[in-house]
Amino acid sequence: MKNIALKLEFDGTEFSGWQIQDNRRTVQGVIEDVLSEILKEKVKVTGCSRTDAGVHSRGYVLNFHSNTTIPAEKIMFPLNIILPEDVKVLQSQEVNDKFHARESALSKIYSYSFLNSSVEPVIHRRTLSLEKGKLDIELMEEAARLFIGTHDFKGFMSQGSSVKSTVRTIYNSKIESHDGTITYIVEGNGFLYNMVRIMVGTLIFIGQGTRTIEDLLSALNTGDRLKAGKVAQAKGLILNEVKY
Amino acid sequence: MKNIALKLEFDGTEFSGWQIQDNRRTVQGVIEDVLSEILKEKVKVTGCSRTDAGVHSRGYVLNFHSNTTIPAEKIMFPLNIILPEDVKVLQSQEVNDKFHARESALSKIYSYSFLNSSVEPVIHRRTLSLEKGKLDIELMEEAARLFIGTHDFKGFMSQGSSVKSTVRTIYNSKIESHDGTITYIVEGNGFLYNMVRIMVGTLIFIGQGTRTIEDLLSALNTGDRLKAGKVAQAKGLILNEVKY
Repeated sequence: MKNIALKLEFDGTEFSGWQIQDNRRTVQGVIEDVLSEILKEKVKVTGCSRTDAGVHSRGYVLNFHSNTTIPAEKIMFPLNIILPEDVKVLQSQEVNDKFHARESALSKIYSYSFLNSSVEPVIHRRTLSLEKGKLDIELMEEAARLFIGTHDFKGFMSQGSSVKSTVRTIYNSKIESHDGTITYIVEGNGFLYNMVRIMVGTLIFIGQGTRTIEDLLSALNTGDRLKAGKVAQAKGLILNEVKY
Repeated sequence: MKNIALKLEFDGTEFSGWQIQDNRRTVQGVIEDVLSEILKEKVKVTGCSRTDAGVHSRGYVLNFHSNTTIPAEKIMFPLNIILPEDVKVLQSQEVNDKFHARESALSKIYSYSFLNSSVEPVIHRRTLSLEKGKLDIELMEEAARLFIGTHDFKGFMSQGSSVKSTVRTIYNSKIESHDGTITYIVEGNGFLYNMVRIMVGTLIFIGQGTRTIEDLLSALNTGDRLKAGKVAQAKGLILNEVKY
């Protein structure tokens, strides 16, 4: 059997997240249906991570096993003809037997973008959230850098998933600002449930003066969820890349 | 009577262009309806230009006359509450009596973006068109610069509108390329019907080898439409700014 990996781009707006659920439109559900149709066998795929409803990706990786005789790198073309406009395959390739989209991942890079304005975003309203009011961007930049390193992120996790350890390593964490659009970019070896969105919510609270740098450090040191910020809206989040 | 100007952002995907038409959803139609509702008087607006169905703007300017007592800079807020999610007012202000959104414009800046890939754009599919196949970007950059200056753009105009003169001046014309997304930026004192889209179509044909630099110069010098390229798809075009 071949082990085949696909890289996907999807617009999460009309999906109830990645993971297959009965009576919901999910990315995994749509991909498994279309793969099973093209390969004429029942296909089950393994994704690199769960994603929440409304979250997007331009580098989501999954793998599956198949007896197909279609060369792996060509599978993407018939898939893309059938797939709906909000999910497409960017790349397909055969990988070694041991490759596992989730367990083999070394790091993931997310970006989160929002508009700082009094007016809702229009053209990019599916991928930008809105923060009204003045933000201290320099202070947010300083705060963003404090996430870099190995920390217990218990204070930056929503309840509802079971994990053995809440320690994660962040390799890069920075804010870029351009014409009122603020983008947070973070790379880490793994992320807890809602972790990126809470990190962003904390940075926004710091920019507004609702939280301080000391609150952020306290949340990192004590795991106190109340010292961190809100869960930023899903639509600003994009999983950009998974490294193996 | 006050003369009031509004700056709009709109996503052109679900509009049949700017100009009001019976039984079609147009930006002008939606704006006039909402303005008339808020100001409790019949409002007719003057736009800075026609735009085709599917074309977007993040700096469209219009003006209208009104007896309203609402301060002009505050009119945007009730408008934005009622306006649909694909058009919002970025700014409202009182302007002098002589200001005319179209006739007072000194220049307009458009951008046109497309993806050079074998796979359709997903996340930004409303604002990116697709060009498959290899493109010589350096040659396109060189060709783009040739538009700068005052030329007769008769060869870069679709039939269907009457204009006195087809001479226009282009102040800036350049191509930027980033991760497979190619953006053409052009500023000029005015644009003929479909002119930006034909300029882009010509640059794409040059990048593909279907047209040459000499063809472009010939189209500029002789007005021969056949020496220019196709009309690029509407959805890649954004009217970014109008200068007064």
